[in-house]
Amino acid sequence: MPFVNIKVTGGAEAPTAEQKAELISGVTELLQRVLNKNPATTVVLIEELSTDNWGIGGESVTVRRRKQ
Amino acid sequence: MPFVNIKVTGGAEAPTAEQKAELISGVTELLQRVLNKNPATTVVLIEELSTDNWGIGGESVTVRRRKQ
Amino acid sequence: MPFVNIKVTGGAEAPTAEQKAELISGVTELLQRVLNKNPATTVVLIEELSTDNWGIGGESVTVRRRKQ
Amino acid sequence: MPFVNIKVTGGAEAPTAEQKAELISGVTELLQRVLNKNPATTVVLIEELSTDNWGIGGESVTVRRRKQ
Amino acid sequence: MPFVNIKVTGGAEAPTAEQKAELISGVTELLQRVLNKNPATTVVLIEELSTDNWGIGGESVTVRRRKQ
Amino acid sequence: MPFVNIKVTGGAEAPTAEQKAELISGVTELLQRVLNKNPATTVVLIEELSTDNWGIGGESVTVRRRKQ
Repeated sequence: MPFVNIKVTGGAEAPTAEQKAELISGVTELLQRVLNKNPATTVVLIEELSTDNWGIGGESVTVRRRKQ
Repeated sequence: MPFVNIKVTGGAEAPTAEQKAELISGVTELLQRVLNKNPATTVVLIEELSTDNWGIGGESVTVRRRKQ
Repeated sequence: MPFVNIKVTGGAEAPTAEQKAELISGVTELLQRVLNKNPATTVVLIEELSTDNWGIGGESVTVRRRKQ
Repeated sequence: MPFVNIKVTGGAEAPTAEQKAELISGVTELLQRVLNKNPATTVVLIEELSTDNWGIGGESVTVRRRKQ
Repeated sequence: MPFVNIKVTGGAEAPTAEQKAELISGVTELLQRVLNKNPATTVVLIEELSTDNWGIGGESVTVRRRKQ
Repeated sequence: MPFVNIKVTGGAEAPTAEQKAELISGVTELLQRVLNKNPATTVVLIEELSTDNWGIGGESVTVRRRKQ
């Protein structure tokens, strides 16, 4: 019955539909294996954010990427 | 003072503005009726996700819809 | 298939198990009535926060309650 | 190591990239100043919602704006 | 740089510290394998909710467990 | 009208009521200064998680603290 919310950067670096499907099946299997949770009621939501909207270390990922 | 976050599938199956308004008023009334919460400070946020980004039973809603 | 997260103040003002059950059935019915969503896959999570941890208008609910 | 999720109205009233950068640096500094949290592992996510999807006082922000 | 929030039922059925560690390492590896995400900045938060506070199919998990 | 959710480690390292009040007023002022948001409808929720439930770099904060 678990609920999983995965947030990643989107836009040019958004996951493909195939990658999203792999995340959904992978995390559902992980919860079944580790906690014996029922896959039928495991919900996984993937949300994509612009690199302008994602901050770490006090600056946006847009700015961090530019510096690298 | 409650906070409610409703996540639903969007895109072709996104709620209309009228439906969103019904969800907002309906959940605000529910919280007032059940818990006597003040509507003035009840916040309701509706978020829409692509069916590719929503997983249940280990697969995306996109794949589930295709099978039905 | 919707997901609903309700956050309310807890502690002395936490909802009872009966009130939580009413919120769960009420919001599930609302989503079925307005958007024709399947109740079987509608997930509702209720989270309770201390009034110290809830801020509105720049101050905590603890402080607001004291002023009223 | 804190995590901060800021949700604001988007569309015509969305913050600019500069304003988002100010929010990210401002909230990271706040957490360092008040709780001595390490900026390097402070994550700030900004999410933008349509005014149709944001409710307060039982009605959407779209409707509230129209009335003002 | 992903962020993952896992919500599961707690109390008597809460995961142990070892199980939580497995979830954290497992989901971090999944994101590295599927999306090449850097584990150093992958944040995983596990939240535990009472079975009274978790609803599916219009009723709480407490009630569902009793019926089984 | 913004909504802010701050998650930090709790237990022995939980913020005091005074520190929570500083976070609430600080982030409310930041949103007013940067985006001209109305403090009266700015909601700030602070959630505290056990260090066992917080993962970064593929391991829990409990384990990371022990290594330092």
